[in-house]
Amino acid sequence: MSVQTTAMANGMRVVTHPMPHLETASLGVWVGTGARCEGPGQHGISHLLEHMAFKGTHRRSAREIAEEIESAGGELNAATSLETTAYYARMLKDDIPLAIDMLGDIVRNPKFDAGELAREQDVILQEITAAEDSPDDEAYDLVQDAAFTGQALGRTILGTKASVRGFTSGDLAAYMKANYAPGAMVLAAAGAVDHDQVVSLAQSTFGDMESGDPPAPAAASYRGGFRRSARRFEQSHIVLSYEGPSYRDETMYAAQILSSMLGGGMSSRLFQEAREARGLCYSIYSFCWGLSDTGLFGVHAATGSDQMQELAQVILQELEKLAVDLVGDAELARAKAQLKSGLLMSLESSGSRAEQLARQMLVFGKPLAVTELVEKVEAVDREAVRALAGKIIIGGKSSASAVGPLKDQNALERLIGRHEPVTARAAE
Amino acid sequence: MSVQTTAMANGMRVVTHPMPHLETASLGVWVGTGARCEGPGQHGISHLLEHMAFKGTHRRSAREIAEEIESAGGELNAATSLETTAYYARMLKDDIPLAIDMLGDIVRNPKFDAGELAREQDVILQEITAAEDSPDDEAYDLVQDAAFTGQALGRTILGTKASVRGFTSGDLAAYMKANYAPGAMVLAAAGAVDHDQVVSLAQSTFGDMESGDPPAPAAASYRGGFRRSARRFEQSHIVLSYEGPSYRDETMYAAQILSSMLGGGMSSRLFQEAREARGLCYSIYSFCWGLSDTGLFGVHAATGSDQMQELAQVILQELEKLAVDLVGDAELARAKAQLKSGLLMSLESSGSRAEQLARQMLVFGKPLAVTELVEKVEAVDREAVRALAGKIIIGGKSSASAVGPLKDQNALERLIGRHEPVTARAAE
Repeated sequence: MSVQTTAMANGMRVVTHPMPHLETASLGVWVGTGARCEGPGQHGISHLLEHMAFKGTHRRSAREIAEEIESAGGELNAATSLETTAYYARMLKDDIPLAIDMLGDIVRNPKFDAGELAREQDVILQEITAAEDSPDDEAYDLVQDAAFTGQALGRTILGTKASVRGFTSGDLAAYMKANYAPGAMVLAAAGAVDHDQVVSLAQSTFGDMESGDPPAPAAASYRGGFRRSARRFEQSHIVLSYEGPSYRDETMYAAQILSSMLGGGMSSRLFQEAREARGLCYSIYSFCWGLSDTGLFGVHAATGSDQMQELAQVILQELEKLAVDLVGDAELARAKAQLKSGLLMSLESSGSRAEQLARQMLVFGKPLAVTELVEKVEAVDREAVRALAGKIIIGGKSSASAVGPLKDQNALERLIGRHEPVTARAAE
Repeated sequence: MSVQTTAMANGMRVVTHPMPHLETASLGVWVGTGARCEGPGQHGISHLLEHMAFKGTHRRSAREIAEEIESAGGELNAATSLETTAYYARMLKDDIPLAIDMLGDIVRNPKFDAGELAREQDVILQEITAAEDSPDDEAYDLVQDAAFTGQALGRTILGTKASVRGFTSGDLAAYMKANYAPGAMVLAAAGAVDHDQVVSLAQSTFGDMESGDPPAPAAASYRGGFRRSARRFEQSHIVLSYEGPSYRDETMYAAQILSSMLGGGMSSRLFQEAREARGLCYSIYSFCWGLSDTGLFGVHAATGSDQMQELAQVILQELEKLAVDLVGDAELARAKAQLKSGLLMSLESSGSRAEQLARQMLVFGKPLAVTELVEKVEAVDREAVRALAGKIIIGGKSSASAVGPLKDQNALERLIGRHEPVTARAAE
């Protein structure tokens, strides 16, 4: 492992993983702020700010930003999540200085021109409208609201049309000044990169930022509940989730194994039972998302209205079995093999690797050795899986949603909106 | 370039690209048959057959297929397109023999059990229903129908609910026997692979297939036309396309450059004019799809009903400018830089590389050297771009669709359903 890290005097950190056989590099600036850091009147400002970074700086117009990176054959993109905002690029190795200069310019010096802002607000209003046409997006948004009701964590990342329309250039500048602090910024690079060169470029681009840390967001308070939305789609979507471990929780490894077994691949319990044995659906997946102090563990599936009750029963039964019965040795070994090879595969993509390292730096303050991750996966035993499933599923409250042309919505709510799975109810 | 090819006695070909620094490999069997090879009563059978390959063979049950590959940490997947059906896997290098054995088993010996077939028909019916909830899927399907009306090429890959429900195990076996012939099959592998090992495994797995070529599908006959679908989505989607070059046509390189300039990235004309300058939409992209004897070149965009007329005008104007005015040197150089770095980046992913090589073998009968591709991109000049744009756009008929809550549908049809862009009309 040739990963190196350097902390700059102002607190910003640099992490690199050179892959000497590659001709291209992936790198970016990950800022440890996102939608959950927004105050009550700031819903959607993190994402709007991410968009406005591309709309001109004091040195480059929006068009110049796009033309300069693409003239070099590079790609520039960005993404906003609940806890991070990432600006990243992929380019030929000779263009690393250009890419870092560009990232520094858009992350530090956006102009927030009022005319550009008005047009970008229009663009985001279209993005919000597009999300309204996506039943799975809506189902996940509703679960987030049920899980973290009344908190910034429970709100959509995009914001509402009214909130996005309301922000001024001054609001953006103030939010950026408060939250884009070097103590919570990481420059991560993987591929055809040299650590010393990246550090030197980072130093000249970001070294004069005043040191500081952003305000910590409010601690998460998991609530739980049921949300429904009657929509004229052909399929109905349900998401059934529970509070899962945070990134920092040692049970995260067992949770990932649990998720793999439940709905991670073709051999998973839900795929085998709901799709293969019963032909109930095309899409059914589990998820296990860690945040810094909480997480969500659950299942998403879509089917026709006539099949929804049966599908929900199958999901609850499979969840319950994991919480009650010990899993088999072969099944546990299979889930571990999938996680371990997934780790190896992520090492072979410069983009995945840069992102993985940036997240580890933000969460743990250091890169995690792959051997250490493999050991933690190996250490999970059958009892740990059952104990975690019991804690999450039987011991926890559910956050659930249903979106679509639902028949018998109340019965569905009784089924998946309850806090306990099937047998726990039978024992009442 | 360490690409090697071997033709087996029965006509099946093997192509490999070893990347010695990797620990994992991507490989698959690409069969040169797909939805366009289906007869009138076979709509959707290629895709159903691809699904049924995973539902049990004479040696393995559906569950055993899934468990065996995933126990080794591997992933198995498949995809059906108009001209190819691909079965592919990614795995650790030691598991290459397992992966090739598995691919051979599912591609040659599927059992087509009647009970499994009935359940998989249910699954595909759900997949079709999910596509009905996707306005962009519908917009592309309608354009395909307009472009290739009355031909297998113009139909959806998934089939209809009635056609899919109608197929029997015997239909699947007959279609497979007729179309899965070694003369149109390629085993492609990239990553931690050794050519001689792959050839030896291919020989023992596929070498006893009787030689033969599948029947050639009917030649494409491009038609053109306009299709609309009034749907209760929030956004409206339009696709406006023309007949483009085939894979085999030397103007494909100019077409890719044209597509890059028109709507390929942030610096493209449509992104700059429709999104950056006017805030009209969030999503706007061009596409340039080659098939063996035809192609589609066009634009897809989504916006609100109130903005649709203006957006359609912008798209037509940008298309027309490309057909009339010579592009600038810097813009041409930028498009070339993007295509060339895209080629380099595809060399760094074992999955992309295996797929690229397989398609080259099916279309050209040999792998194309990256240096040769770069030379062909370099050779395109400003006049070639304008000439091609003129031929495609001014000289061609459009195939267009509009899906969503369209206002003033007739005006939109008059605008994008016409065969000539704006100034060509003005000159009438």
